[in-house]
Amino acid sequence: MSASTRLAELGLTLPEVPTPAAAYRPTARTGALVITAGQLPVVDGELAATGKLGEALTTDQGAELARTAALNVLAAAAAGAGDLDRVRIVKLTVFVASAPGFTEQHLVANGASNLIGDVLADHGAHARSAVGVASLPLDAPVEVEAIVEVLPG
Amino acid sequence: MSASTRLAELGLTLPEVPTPAAAYRPTARTGALVITAGQLPVVDGELAATGKLGEALTTDQGAELARTAALNVLAAAAAGAGDLDRVRIVKLTVFVASAPGFTEQHLVANGASNLIGDVLADHGAHARSAVGVASLPLDAPVEVEAIVEVLPG
Amino acid sequence: MSASTRLAELGLTLPEVPTPAAAYRPTARTGALVITAGQLPVVDGELAATGKLGEALTTDQGAELARTAALNVLAAAAAGAGDLDRVRIVKLTVFVASAPGFTEQHLVANGASNLIGDVLADHGAHARSAVGVASLPLDAPVEVEAIVEVLPG
Repeated sequence: MSASTRLAELGLTLPEVPTPAAAYRPTARTGALVITAGQLPVVDGELAATGKLGEALTTDQGAELARTAALNVLAAAAAGAGDLDRVRIVKLTVFVASAPGFTEQHLVANGASNLIGDVLADHGAHARSAVGVASLPLDAPVEVEAIVEVLPG
Repeated sequence: MSASTRLAELGLTLPEVPTPAAAYRPTARTGALVITAGQLPVVDGELAATGKLGEALTTDQGAELARTAALNVLAAAAAGAGDLDRVRIVKLTVFVASAPGFTEQHLVANGASNLIGDVLADHGAHARSAVGVASLPLDAPVEVEAIVEVLPG
Repeated sequence: MSASTRLAELGLTLPEVPTPAAAYRPTARTGALVITAGQLPVVDGELAATGKLGEALTTDQGAELARTAALNVLAAAAAGAGDLDRVRIVKLTVFVASAPGFTEQHLVANGASNLIGDVLADHGAHARSAVGVASLPLDAPVEVEAIVEVLPG
């Protein structure tokens, strides 16, 4: 079953890739790799939530937001690779805006990892780092970036 | 117009690549990629400023410091690639030392992205992540690292 | 002298690669690169320490913990490359859980860089970023990730 089919079966569609406000691109390709910009949990051009984990948001809410950001990663990766079915995610880095005592970044990041696995199956088996940062652009709660391998067409 | 020419027209020169104090290198090459170490806004061997954004420093000051760090990234990349004109920046990660309420990391990072675009033009179209971190080595306000593609000579 | 021999002469053995709890892998390979997941200072399945640098832990303790995490990076890299003697470390990123005033992330990260240099010699000459983050999964004090080149067998 193709990634596009699995995406549809999950009731998901790839959002439009947001145009960065600054002098950078949503992705850049080098050889067989596509590197994505950090993606925020933006839905229809607006952040789905703001604030920090362990303060404004619970771990479950954070995981859902990481899933939303990961869907944007998939959209960027598909645009960069030319086709979702040619996307293999090699690495995810999940930055989690964290109040000082919050230490469940790995559980937040699972929201992103699980979506990637659900959509890409074998092509979603990735390495991952999850880290808790002081704050993120626009007060976003999470930011997810990826290293992507472009599969032969 | 070459990157070297644009650099000169901007009135800039590449600084010397600082020698890391520890057991690591300013860059490492693998295949057609050069990976840079995180670069601080060092000028003539000294940090141009210290402290956090949203506390000791304004967003405009941060953007200027990110530009300075990005010039060091270019110097390292040129040394690693053998020639500035063979440097293509694929990805920038901009770490911004941030007081808890500071959420303009993207505007700070624009200082780095804009310099890369000004100097490298098409070869500077990069993906980017900007994140707010708790603190940086030597109380540096920003740290910028890059993934670089070495263009054919 | 091979990396395996140097490891033995240092009185070290590679630990088992910890199985991630979530939907991700300790490493992913793309072309000649292996990307590792962020590794914590885990020994026999337990974190060797918790807490932040500049608060619960000294810089020396942090450097020792970074060394422990780097040994886990080597174990993951060796598993991903098939053999420790085919591992070349290209880049390390060292995330250091930091109390607000802590600015010696580079000295903490030296614990990781020095181990990599001691074990891999020329194959351990890497670029590096060291950053101070708000907090890490499970209250880990450090997290180390690597980009690895797989040397010809």
